[in-house]
Amino acid sequence: MAQKVKLSTIADSLGLSTATVSLALRDSSLVAEVTRERIKQSARDLGYIYNRRAASLRTSKSGILGVCVHDIMNPFFGEILKSVEDELDRRRQTFILCNHHDELAKQRSFVDTMLQLGADGLILSPAIGTPASDIHLAEENDLPVTLIARTIEGSGVCGFRGDDAYGMGLAVDHLIGRGHRSIAMIGGTAMTSTGRDREAGYRAALKRGGIEFRDEWRVEGPRDRHSGFDAVSAFLAIEKRPTAIVCFSDLVALGVMYGLSRAGLRPGVDIAVIGYDDIDEAAIATPALTTVANGQSEVGRRAAGALLDRLQGLPASEETILITPELKIRQSSEFAWPN
Amino acid sequence: MAQKVKLSTIADSLGLSTATVSLALRDSSLVAEVTRERIKQSARDLGYIYNRRAASLRTSKSGILGVCVHDIMNPFFGEILKSVEDELDRRRQTFILCNHHDELAKQRSFVDTMLQLGADGLILSPAIGTPASDIHLAEENDLPVTLIARTIEGSGVCGFRGDDAYGMGLAVDHLIGRGHRSIAMIGGTAMTSTGRDREAGYRAALKRGGIEFRDEWRVEGPRDRHSGFDAVSAFLAIEKRPTAIVCFSDLVALGVMYGLSRAGLRPGVDIAVIGYDDIDEAAIATPALTTVANGQSEVGRRAAGALLDRLQGLPASEETILITPELKIRQSSEFAWPN
Repeated sequence: MAQKVKLSTIADSLGLSTATVSLALRDSSLVAEVTRERIKQSARDLGYIYNRRAASLRTSKSGILGVCVHDIMNPFFGEILKSVEDELDRRRQTFILCNHHDELAKQRSFVDTMLQLGADGLILSPAIGTPASDIHLAEENDLPVTLIARTIEGSGVCGFRGDDAYGMGLAVDHLIGRGHRSIAMIGGTAMTSTGRDREAGYRAALKRGGIEFRDEWRVEGPRDRHSGFDAVSAFLAIEKRPTAIVCFSDLVALGVMYGLSRAGLRPGVDIAVIGYDDIDEAAIATPALTTVANGQSEVGRRAAGALLDRLQGLPASEETILITPELKIRQSSEFAWPN
Repeated sequence: MAQKVKLSTIADSLGLSTATVSLALRDSSLVAEVTRERIKQSARDLGYIYNRRAASLRTSKSGILGVCVHDIMNPFFGEILKSVEDELDRRRQTFILCNHHDELAKQRSFVDTMLQLGADGLILSPAIGTPASDIHLAEENDLPVTLIARTIEGSGVCGFRGDDAYGMGLAVDHLIGRGHRSIAMIGGTAMTSTGRDREAGYRAALKRGGIEFRDEWRVEGPRDRHSGFDAVSAFLAIEKRPTAIVCFSDLVALGVMYGLSRAGLRPGVDIAVIGYDDIDEAAIATPALTTVANGQSEVGRRAAGALLDRLQGLPASEETILITPELKIRQSSEFAWPN
């Protein structure tokens, strides 16, 4: 297999030294970019395969980063990934992805793979129940970790996420300002920092507004579109039906809007609905969805940047950076109540 | 780093031979499953890191598969990936993901990474413009490839996808059966086999139904929700507005339904809309979306199975397997025309 074409073959064909070819294939800035491109093109033309495995045994650096989240298909993560990708592209860094579906065993298997490949680092949105010791194990084995979207008490590594309590507070304050006095919250779970913080923000805002929270207003669980749709029947069964709903995420809110329409209610007219994340679809949904922009791009860009900085020898931080969210008011919370 | 805990440490702690421990950690069936699990647990407890890089130089097998598609966030791929994942889990095979966004350079970079890591195989939905020679290069370097969703003329490898011409024909036949005589097609491009085949199926069905195709009925391009939404203005500008729309995908159709609603038209009542893929959301959309189920699960399961069979020494196939699609009739094409 491979490796029949040698560095010297490429060097000879271009009239360059093998050292120059070797540096160029490792993207060293010691070789002018135009020369590097010419060398890489020639390497490709000749069918040369750089043996990163052998190289990584020498340098202990594979040149690979891992990115592991619970649900790549959630557009919220899609948007984080896009900005991670842009930042890594800009710095010419390869990365590979994994979906852990909130299964700790899957996440561990991916982390093991990263360790076994000698990956340079990991950007992780940790699965529910990830103990701090899992992060310590990776770090002790020279796999630096940066957390996104969720954080872990005592992990000792830096993380980037939105200020969820503040953001949910913005949504509830806005509804109270429009005259709503009974507001349900659909979706999310106390098992994640995100779920806990958004619920805390919801309850604190009700309190600020002088509204007493009622247990039946809190429909816990849904975290995707389909379970949001299904939760509408629980919402409709509440004895004194609330006039507004804040949802754990845009996906949940979009499912809730489908469910309300199916039940003959008009979202934004009969029931105000607010989402969370400001995914691309929120603006084109009909009615357009009021939501909380959660700084996905900033989370992704800064997490990738922090990890790459650390790989270049800059000191590691243990801080969790909270990105400040912003309310986007659209049709789904348009009307003042009672309307 | 790592490797301080040796095979012999684990062997000693359990009173077993190092050969048994080594086989168990490579998941050999020569060791009873209960013993394997005990050995792995002990390895984890002791903090042992199996050095797959060193092992892969010996065996030329990394135990890793790659999966590379153009858009992981498209639920169509999400559903294929889920079934790939289930099949690989069942056979205890690790895999890593990549999004090439239809950029040939990104796809090549991922394939290079796979080659450099000595990956065992690749499941690929090829980027637009992938030449057969890219597949040949991978194959010649011992990276077996199985194609999904799209195929490449002359690639010489097996592939799995839905029978797109037939499936789109089902959708158009159904509309003609309901009395529609002017039917637009929104989305897709002739640059992919999927786009070409679905358009061919649309045109053939019009012909079968005795309807003469008109150029302005074909709104090419959109392949996601947002561009489907945007395409509604082009549709509304058609001089004699068609009474029905078949869309390249469910995402496009869902965007089109948002756009029609925004323009004050009722999808399923004023304009019939049909999607393609039968993603989970199609059934909960309001109106529920008529669509073509495209066998995503079967594509994923069979592609993973074919690749794994080949790795175990079964002969390679060069066939493209077409999965037969099925029409799912729902509210969005409910009414007979004229209604």
